[in-house]
Amino acid sequence: MSNFRLGIISSIYNGIPKEAQITRIEFEGPEIAVYVKNPSVLSDKMDLIKKIVKEIKKRIVIKADNSVRKDKKETIEIIKNFVPAEAQISDIKFDDELGEVLIKAKKPGLVIGKRGLIQQKIFMDTYWRPVIIREPPIKSRTVEGVLTHIYNETEYRAKMLKTFGERIHREILFKDRYVRVTALGAFQEVGRSAVLVETPESRVLMDVGVNPSVNFGERMFPKLDIDQLRLEDLDAVVLTHAHLDHSGMIPFLFKYGYDGPVYTTQPTRDIMALMQLDLLDVADKEGRPLPYSAKEVRKELLHTITLDYEEVTDIAPDIRLTFYNAGHIIGSAMAHLHIGDGVHNLVYTGDFKYARTRLLDRAVSEFPRVDTLIMETTYGAQLQTNRDESEKQLIDVINKTLNRGGKVLIPVLAVGRGQEIMLVINDAMKRKLIPEVPVYVTGLFDEVTAIHTAYPEWLGKEVRDSILFRDENPFTSEFFKRIEGYREDIAEGEPSIILATSGMLNGGPAVEFFKQLAPDPKNSLIFVSYQAEGTLGRKVRDGAREIQIIGRDGRVDNIKVNLETTPIDGFSGHSDRRQLLKFLEDLTPKPRNIILNHGEASAIREFKKNIENFRERERLGLRSANIYSPAILDSIRLDKTS
Amino acid sequence: MSNFRLGIISSIYNGIPKEAQITRIEFEGPEIAVYVKNPSVLSDKMDLIKKIVKEIKKRIVIKADNSVRKDKKETIEIIKNFVPAEAQISDIKFDDELGEVLIKAKKPGLVIGKRGLIQQKIFMDTYWRPVIIREPPIKSRTVEGVLTHIYNETEYRAKMLKTFGERIHREILFKDRYVRVTALGAFQEVGRSAVLVETPESRVLMDVGVNPSVNFGERMFPKLDIDQLRLEDLDAVVLTHAHLDHSGMIPFLFKYGYDGPVYTTQPTRDIMALMQLDLLDVADKEGRPLPYSAKEVRKELLHTITLDYEEVTDIAPDIRLTFYNAGHIIGSAMAHLHIGDGVHNLVYTGDFKYARTRLLDRAVSEFPRVDTLIMETTYGAQLQTNRDESEKQLIDVINKTLNRGGKVLIPVLAVGRGQEIMLVINDAMKRKLIPEVPVYVTGLFDEVTAIHTAYPEWLGKEVRDSILFRDENPFTSEFFKRIEGYREDIAEGEPSIILATSGMLNGGPAVEFFKQLAPDPKNSLIFVSYQAEGTLGRKVRDGAREIQIIGRDGRVDNIKVNLETTPIDGFSGHSDRRQLLKFLEDLTPKPRNIILNHGEASAIREFKKNIENFRERERLGLRSANIYSPAILDSIRLDKTS
Repeated sequence: MSNFRLGIISSIYNGIPKEAQITRIEFEGPEIAVYVKNPSVLSDKMDLIKKIVKEIKKRIVIKADNSVRKDKKETIEIIKNFVPAEAQISDIKFDDELGEVLIKAKKPGLVIGKRGLIQQKIFMDTYWRPVIIREPPIKSRTVEGVLTHIYNETEYRAKMLKTFGERIHREILFKDRYVRVTALGAFQEVGRSAVLVETPESRVLMDVGVNPSVNFGERMFPKLDIDQLRLEDLDAVVLTHAHLDHSGMIPFLFKYGYDGPVYTTQPTRDIMALMQLDLLDVADKEGRPLPYSAKEVRKELLHTITLDYEEVTDIAPDIRLTFYNAGHIIGSAMAHLHIGDGVHNLVYTGDFKYARTRLLDRAVSEFPRVDTLIMETTYGAQLQTNRDESEKQLIDVINKTLNRGGKVLIPVLAVGRGQEIMLVINDAMKRKLIPEVPVYVTGLFDEVTAIHTAYPEWLGKEVRDSILFRDENPFTSEFFKRIEGYREDIAEGEPSIILATSGMLNGGPAVEFFKQLAPDPKNSLIFVSYQAEGTLGRKVRDGAREIQIIGRDGRVDNIKVNLETTPIDGFSGHSDRRQLLKFLEDLTPKPRNIILNHGEASAIREFKKNIENFRERERLGLRSANIYSPAILDSIRLDKTS
Repeated sequence: MSNFRLGIISSIYNGIPKEAQITRIEFEGPEIAVYVKNPSVLSDKMDLIKKIVKEIKKRIVIKADNSVRKDKKETIEIIKNFVPAEAQISDIKFDDELGEVLIKAKKPGLVIGKRGLIQQKIFMDTYWRPVIIREPPIKSRTVEGVLTHIYNETEYRAKMLKTFGERIHREILFKDRYVRVTALGAFQEVGRSAVLVETPESRVLMDVGVNPSVNFGERMFPKLDIDQLRLEDLDAVVLTHAHLDHSGMIPFLFKYGYDGPVYTTQPTRDIMALMQLDLLDVADKEGRPLPYSAKEVRKELLHTITLDYEEVTDIAPDIRLTFYNAGHIIGSAMAHLHIGDGVHNLVYTGDFKYARTRLLDRAVSEFPRVDTLIMETTYGAQLQTNRDESEKQLIDVINKTLNRGGKVLIPVLAVGRGQEIMLVINDAMKRKLIPEVPVYVTGLFDEVTAIHTAYPEWLGKEVRDSILFRDENPFTSEFFKRIEGYREDIAEGEPSIILATSGMLNGGPAVEFFKQLAPDPKNSLIFVSYQAEGTLGRKVRDGAREIQIIGRDGRVDNIKVNLETTPIDGFSGHSDRRQLLKFLEDLTPKPRNIILNHGEASAIREFKKNIENFRERERLGLRSANIYSPAILDSIRLDKTS
């Protein structure tokens, strides 16, 4: 065992009273679990634990030794006794390895109790450590499936956490210090995001995506096959959000030798799994197999460690990770790396929205320290219509269409702006700005909405408060009618609003609805997201009046496009140029290096020119910052003096 | 065996007449050796061989099968019969493995014969392939030692060449193409030169030096301990010249897992070994051991493949190396890498002098293709006195000193300008511009001069012609008196000129002479090279009038410095700013990328500013070139479109 770990262990032994009877101390991922025979001794001694935590700068969790934990049946009884019936417990699962009891309830707050008292009581009376999660009001097979999978593999997971923990707390070897960033994907382009961070001690990969606009070949994946990147030696994968252009290649790592942890948020973990499995499914149907299978997705889930925003976590001997809200989609995060005890501090924004939306709070712009900022620049050269204006546009089109007896079809991406549109429509209907017609919700998008309802704590303040404190959940609003796939009766029925995937009309029930609605000029089609080159959505958006669609059975449908088409660009989850600049202006403290990524070469070039301008530099407080726009396989040493 | 090698082998079998009786085909390093039982069949069929060479684009050497080679005694007789006595053969050695006979002679030209006829005749009559080298007029223990060592290890060497050959001619695997350069040492600094070139197929390290101004610690060596660089996977080391800041860490590679070839020129090979062994010696005496020993220097020599200027050589499946004269010291080269059948062409200048000197021709500035130029910038911010002016200064000081009955001490670096000064003095004395006094030559520098006399073909045209065609060797001129170490009788004797190492007065006979000559104002001290901070030379140069020198025995000498001190900066082996700019102006064709290295940060900054100026860009024909000044551990992708 390393001297470093021995030091931590002796601090714990010295700091905790003998009567607690420590039986073992385990490095469980980033946490240190202290197993004791007599946890009650510590119940009123939290100060002691805090003192140790301060001393060793590590997270400590007190757990009860296996031998003293109560019988499971009895534990279930005790839990049911302590927790009020209104909490609506739906499931209780045990993890023998980690000494945890998972309690799933419709109202998890009531299981936790005021100031955590009930939760604490459960532990002290049963010696099982409660892990409390929400049973979503809309049933999600994903949330359900992920948890079942993890709780079926507690032994493997405990073993993994121990391995990770020992690796994280290994001895620091090198005196020499450097921090180096290498562009592996999504530099001078959008798609296949991947950034490698290297120090003499450790290597961290941030995001590992696929390029969704490429179906095969080397440009589909980030450059993972270089000497610099040995998957076996990688310390951690950090995932900023669930979109496939950031997460789609993580399972591949596990297929080719990676065996370490994936750090992300809870919502991202679930949506990522859903997206990856869907990608496998689509790829399979289209006969272009991916270089991994569902097996690796399952492994990835067992290797995932979820973190809350602003929770500081050791992920390597010399790297601490903290996630901050990125405002892009639910669970999306900016990653802050604190390297080498302050040698360097790096913020990687991932995709971010520097503006409040109905769904999410504005991305964070204040950090404890920032030396280098890696920043997305997707819309570095564009301005979006503002949000109020966009909402007004949406409401106008809906009104006009419904008033003339038409139906409104809104194709939505599975993850992203669909839920935002739901909030806009729900609000407008409540405020009677649009007539009360059925709003049909269908496709993969609906499952993602269900996941949203499992994690209201991760939504913006307004909607979070509405759900948690006013018991008003817009996603379960009576206006929304959840349906399975396409329904002809709806397409041919009364005026309504239809939200359906896919967002670019290249599959899913949205296409079926489109075929039915397109010929009638009374109907409307509203695009709320980007339509990529080559998709049906793009053709329609660009004004095609007649379209041929080849069905699954090979039959060709000739569709006359007579419905009204309206693109609205103000709902984007990305910051536009104005918002990117505002972010830089507000950013505290100011970085020495800015690295622009995740944008077409032209967008990055234009944005770079913008902020390199002398006056703009002064205004943004970036007078002497180095501004880089690297290409894939460029490496930049960050800790240099110049 | 790879399909690629099979293809080459079948081309050779198809192209060579059956009667020649091929017994084996070996990949011996970059050459392909065809062993035949009947070489005489091919003596008038060189066209056939040329055709094959053109087809397979590889160098072919015809050798005789072991079984048909003549007895060694008989071979020696035949050689002595064929070669005129004036050739003065001094040694004959056999390499059974490679079927070669080494013939050492004072006049190698007479062994080769007109249009190579004698050499050819020796082969046809003995079936041993002659390798002819010069016995230098000044005996060099280095040249001697290196050859003896290599010919003692013919079995090992043949095995190695075969290994290298098979590695070079391995199959190309990757469709994806990229070229990437990583700064490992001598970027934003001078010293510890090292550049890594990576493609999907292969990795080449150019120069691996030590930082001579640092005695220990991580800043002494290039950054070799990074994930990107696995010594076992390295294809080749390319060495541009023998100075330790370029060659001093090559033996280290062999200690830590490297087992491949070192490509360099013949003079560089010998001087490099001399310098490395001397470094080991000094480090040992000073009690700060280096991370390698003489064992690794010996291994390095067996792994060294020497190339002539402008000889195109495969060094990896997708990389061809060509050396060009760099004009810096004897054997110094610019390295041209032709990558991936023309995907990218890179020129690494190493240290270069873009001006003719007495010793060497001006560096080359025309290349078949150049996409990226990595260029030294040591004097990017300085102008040197021109050469004629410098020579005049030197002659003036010598005259003045000798005329007043004084002695002239010129401290010289072991390798570099000392030989240049010899040429200046020899010429001046011959032309009676200075009085004819003894010119004493002593120290490590003298051994290096001996090596110069072994390789006159590598010197500048004028001195080369003088030695080879007019039989006038300035280094063996009667003016020069070679002595061992320090001699008191000379220091106290009649007026004379003394050339002695070390060049910065930090050791060697130069210091002993200095101690004796310093107090007398009749004497002169001329500095012809850079005096580093912290050396005795620097102190004296900066005007110290009293100096304390601690002898080996610990005794402190108080020296009054009364002699006349004159620094002359025009003999530098580096290009000054004017010459660097002229090189860029003349450079053909013009590169897309220019990477500045080997210069202090301030020199690089200033030179970069200089050439980034719009008008200067126009003038130099570099309007749209990217100009980089990377820091250590930066990587630059070279084959990008922008």
